[in-house]
Amino acid sequence: MAQNIYDNPDFFAGYSQLPRQVEGLDGAPEWPAIRALLPELTGRRLADLGCGFGWATRWFRDQGASSVLGLDLSQNMIERARTDTEDAGIEYRIADLETLELPEAAFDLVYSALTFHYVRDFERLIRMIHAALAPGGDLVFTIEHPIFMAAAHPRWTLDEDGRKTWPVNGYSIEGERRTDWFAKGVLKHHRTLATTINTLIGAGFELHWMEEFAPMPEQIAEIPELSEELERPMMLLVSAQKR
Amino acid sequence: MAQNIYDNPDFFAGYSQLPRQVEGLDGAPEWPAIRALLPELTGRRLADLGCGFGWATRWFRDQGASSVLGLDLSQNMIERARTDTEDAGIEYRIADLETLELPEAAFDLVYSALTFHYVRDFERLIRMIHAALAPGGDLVFTIEHPIFMAAAHPRWTLDEDGRKTWPVNGYSIEGERRTDWFAKGVLKHHRTLATTINTLIGAGFELHWMEEFAPMPEQIAEIPELSEELERPMMLLVSAQKR
Repeated sequence: MAQNIYDNPDFFAGYSQLPRQVEGLDGAPEWPAIRALLPELTGRRLADLGCGFGWATRWFRDQGASSVLGLDLSQNMIERARTDTEDAGIEYRIADLETLELPEAAFDLVYSALTFHYVRDFERLIRMIHAALAPGGDLVFTIEHPIFMAAAHPRWTLDEDGRKTWPVNGYSIEGERRTDWFAKGVLKHHRTLATTINTLIGAGFELHWMEEFAPMPEQIAEIPELSEELERPMMLLVSAQKR
Repeated sequence: MAQNIYDNPDFFAGYSQLPRQVEGLDGAPEWPAIRALLPELTGRRLADLGCGFGWATRWFRDQGASSVLGLDLSQNMIERARTDTEDAGIEYRIADLETLELPEAAFDLVYSALTFHYVRDFERLIRMIHAALAPGGDLVFTIEHPIFMAAAHPRWTLDEDGRKTWPVNGYSIEGERRTDWFAKGVLKHHRTLATTINTLIGAGFELHWMEEFAPMPEQIAEIPELSEELERPMMLLVSAQKR
């Protein structure tokens, strides 16, 4: 079973105060870039893996999705999502992506935001998602970028000119990474970018697009702290289609 | 026109002494990984963009390619390649990849090793290559990895534990990078990994595989200095097919 850090009280208290949790989708600077990757949603059957409070889950329905299944490991998140949602077209369920099985060819789009880097067995998950998609179905997901995750001490340093610089080491050595983020020892699984993409291709997906998220100039004008995101990508966005 | 650093006497003198130039393909640790990406070569028409001394060009013919066109910007390289080759199935020509035009549907495989990062207009080049390939034709190339190229000062540092660490900054800011490598001010063009892959997809290629080159344990056992390549990828290897 994946580490259930989101039900750790300290973690949950801190995490719940993030702008993206308080303000919803518009609190996430990468949201416009994600929207650009999404296919037409009207009448489509969706699964949202790692749905959290259900911000995207509800948005999908607003865009005309016929049904959305929202799954999350965290009981805290699912309870809050259920409280915030009144919609017979949405079902929330507690589920562990390490062992999740979905019915075959039952979905037109599988979506996941910042969740897959918590999953140890990525290949199993991707093959299961491929089987759960109808032919021509889409997979759109975001993860922490491996440049952001790889190093033993992933935090800003300064180069000899005083420029914000991100350290990379251990990039080719895949496996567990533990960081302190609202709680000690949050467990993530580092994979190279090539492994992520080749796993999709090997499972029968065709890669449609990828983004190494960088803020737009107008986003930096509004939130100057975002400019540091130009120095190294924190997130990888991927769109792929079942062949 | 691309910078012709390979005809700078100091650069050429140093470059010619690299193991991969003295020993040929077996002097390049990534060569086994490149071979694994190559399609069947027998009877196929090839172009080798940035052929240098012609090591790979001649190897392709040994593997049964029906013809190989070797192109390089450097007069030094092409002269040496011609001197070292006696094969009516190989033609060498001086050419600038910034402006090169190849005949349509005339090749089954376009290959390029560590050359495309010298090219400013990557999209023009990739669209031209797509047109020059027969339907189903392959493009296999290697470039310096953007993690390796991005920073203002791309060289090893040590983290707080004394571990070799590579700096990344300016990753999302594409464009010129100048480094000192056998000569001052060698000009390269940094693109994000996403731009490289999306340019292929946008031109009509299907991505087949990518590798962020890391040495195998047996290579490290033979050449211990290679172990630092596990800390950050220096090269990106890509295989794509014309749809």
